[in-house]
Amino acid sequence: MQHARPLPTYLVQRYLGWKATTYKENRAWYRRLASEGQRPRAMVIACCDSRVQVTSIFGADQGEFFVHRNIANLVPPYEPDGQQHGTSAAVEYAVTALKVAHLIVLGHSQCGGVKGCLDMCQGRAPELEETSSFVGRWMDILRPGVETIDSLPEDQQTEALEKEAVLTSLRNLMTFPFVAKAVEEDELTLHGTWTTIGEGGLEAYDPARGQFRPVNPTE
Amino acid sequence: MQHARPLPTYLVQRYLGWKATTYKENRAWYRRLASEGQRPRAMVIACCDSRVQVTSIFGADQGEFFVHRNIANLVPPYEPDGQQHGTSAAVEYAVTALKVAHLIVLGHSQCGGVKGCLDMCQGRAPELEETSSFVGRWMDILRPGVETIDSLPEDQQTEALEKEAVLTSLRNLMTFPFVAKAVEEDELTLHGTWTTIGEGGLEAYDPARGQFRPVNPTE
Amino acid sequence: MQHARPLPTYLVQRYLGWKATTYKENRAWYRRLASEGQRPRAMVIACCDSRVQVTSIFGADQGEFFVHRNIANLVPPYEPDGQQHGTSAAVEYAVTALKVAHLIVLGHSQCGGVKGCLDMCQGRAPELEETSSFVGRWMDILRPGVETIDSLPEDQQTEALEKEAVLTSLRNLMTFPFVAKAVEEDELTLHGTWTTIGEGGLEAYDPARGQFRPVNPTE
Amino acid sequence: MQHARPLPTYLVQRYLGWKATTYKENRAWYRRLASEGQRPRAMVIACCDSRVQVTSIFGADQGEFFVHRNIANLVPPYEPDGQQHGTSAAVEYAVTALKVAHLIVLGHSQCGGVKGCLDMCQGRAPELEETSSFVGRWMDILRPGVETIDSLPEDQQTEALEKEAVLTSLRNLMTFPFVAKAVEEDELTLHGTWTTIGEGGLEAYDPARGQFRPVNPTE
Repeated sequence: MQHARPLPTYLVQRYLGWKATTYKENRAWYRRLASEGQRPRAMVIACCDSRVQVTSIFGADQGEFFVHRNIANLVPPYEPDGQQHGTSAAVEYAVTALKVAHLIVLGHSQCGGVKGCLDMCQGRAPELEETSSFVGRWMDILRPGVETIDSLPEDQQTEALEKEAVLTSLRNLMTFPFVAKAVEEDELTLHGTWTTIGEGGLEAYDPARGQFRPVNPTE
Repeated sequence: MQHARPLPTYLVQRYLGWKATTYKENRAWYRRLASEGQRPRAMVIACCDSRVQVTSIFGADQGEFFVHRNIANLVPPYEPDGQQHGTSAAVEYAVTALKVAHLIVLGHSQCGGVKGCLDMCQGRAPELEETSSFVGRWMDILRPGVETIDSLPEDQQTEALEKEAVLTSLRNLMTFPFVAKAVEEDELTLHGTWTTIGEGGLEAYDPARGQFRPVNPTE
Repeated sequence: MQHARPLPTYLVQRYLGWKATTYKENRAWYRRLASEGQRPRAMVIACCDSRVQVTSIFGADQGEFFVHRNIANLVPPYEPDGQQHGTSAAVEYAVTALKVAHLIVLGHSQCGGVKGCLDMCQGRAPELEETSSFVGRWMDILRPGVETIDSLPEDQQTEALEKEAVLTSLRNLMTFPFVAKAVEEDELTLHGTWTTIGEGGLEAYDPARGQFRPVNPTE
Repeated sequence: MQHARPLPTYLVQRYLGWKATTYKENRAWYRRLASEGQRPRAMVIACCDSRVQVTSIFGADQGEFFVHRNIANLVPPYEPDGQQHGTSAAVEYAVTALKVAHLIVLGHSQCGGVKGCLDMCQGRAPELEETSSFVGRWMDILRPGVETIDSLPEDQQTEALEKEAVLTSLRNLMTFPFVAKAVEEDELTLHGTWTTIGEGGLEAYDPARGQFRPVNPTE
């Protein structure tokens, strides 16, 4: 691998800072996590977006969350065709091997992937329609969801589609036999959430009302 | 989505804590991140493992790292076949849309995915060989790497394969035309790293010596 | 005390969250609790087990329960020998100084202490018989109770002994003169309860029938 | 046990509320905690005082903290005499069986037990000096600590002795061979903390400065 380069110095420096503080203070716990293995309570599926910090928002301790992050927090439908499905592999490992109790899909505002999907489906991004566009093909997962928001005023479409992406993932999760079985046997619960980058808000999907609602409506 | 459930109360409580402290202290920055969009300096590809906290190790602030996390931090080879490739989509978005300057692959010790690959390739996990095993098919990406560690003493094989997974990802990254181009034009550098869960160690691949070395050899 | 270390950062962060939310919302009450002193209605004696959350199960507000937690929720017999008896001190303070109206002993399923007592008394844990074993000597309090469950089928013994531990504590409580007096003068009532970790069940001892019964038999 | 009484209705009602909400939402996790056993990261030793809510202050999830609560959060010195030592048994179980990574002693303001100790040692509470006083004998553990605060102005003595109680427990913990060994082998860290009931403050003992300091001095 002649193309690899040394780690940028600023990251080395920060790592050494972490080692001398956080690591040092928690060494006993980290060693135990290493020797006994992980036992996370929840899996979180979130976006790669640099502005979403899953563990920070939920005050998560090392060892608590099994985290999969991809473009637009999407889960494709169950398709056991022998091909490489990274998201499906992560879900399979979390549910069948780690037996997590919660599976939380976390969407967010200003999502570039969702915006690209909307542009593509409404004819404004022909380059994403090309076979060679990995982002375009990945966002195909959300294509059926565009219908559900098409009749909304234009300035509400992106946010609605971001939330629809969360629901699409939840629906697709239920097409996985091992997810459906765990849910039906009360061994796993699914949760849909959506956060706003700028305001630090958090909404959770309320199945009784069929809509997303702020987790703290009175604030 | 009648299957979704409300967010567990302990997470709501912790979120409200984050909102009242971290968010409140950084509100101006978060609002700017929302209005101006993300501009991450680096993409990190790490494992979903709950014991690996990418942003913590590197002291990353909100907005700094575009993070993709999958089983065993693997990147498949370039394959523009019109199918859904979540990892390839994340890499494409980071390199062509966000134009990140660094792409860091972060492996780790005690990796369950790598262990599964080793078991599968050495005949101890026939269930992973089945077509329907998403984890097995995903770990096929690392199958060629098993040859490189097969002759090592058994107790050194897992660690060696964890590091080989990092190198496999770096090699596969170079098969993406847009990655190779950005690297050749000095707009992107690739980095291979590997961390130990229990000891909080960090090694980086040194291309001059062709091996991983502790980032702080003198400590 | 050169051995003390700083508080782990994740706990500091969570504490600050609590301060900014729960504390802030209840400040007036907490200040009054501080200036006027505590006046708890009940004392609860429960196990140290991390899976038993006394205040959560009973929806207890700050100031309501005086809580003593030890291994297997045991109360030793009255023994005013001038030695240090932590549990007896807690009971004495609750009954004579705070004059609580209820004293609730809360047992639970999967109790490691009770399991150890059973193993010890049936010859499977010789290490617990050693003089130097604090856990073994503490579980001696329950030793007489093992006789009462010895003839049961093996798979029913642990649960039966967990409930016997609650009854043993209630019986021992009545050997304390100040407890017996308060009970006889109708200033204190004793209650025996047992909860199941996995199913969230709660049973209460029914003196009329001489057995534990679900608090909600119709559910 | 003819003295036991049915559970007060208000507690039955609250329990049923917990069962229908918190339990129902977290059923999968509670079942897993039951089947796999507890694996708490920390042990907390706190006071029985009804105004101290350990799990709430630290945003603790079910399964995170092994909690021992006694009068004035005291740990007696190591004394393997074959007698019943409830606190020593709890510490032994946490450190040797559960292998917790942190042991946190949590003191608090307005502590009735500490106040009693001060009154007793300064001659204002002769009843606590009696052999039959369980509270008096228990507070003997803190008697040597009174010397350290005796020369302070009277209105500073109680708070100083509350903090001394935390340090006494930390010192006594180090007299347990299994605690000292775990600390020396970096498998356990000890932490001293003290909280104010009315103001919701939290101070942690800083070994470098030899004093308690607010965890958030800039707030």
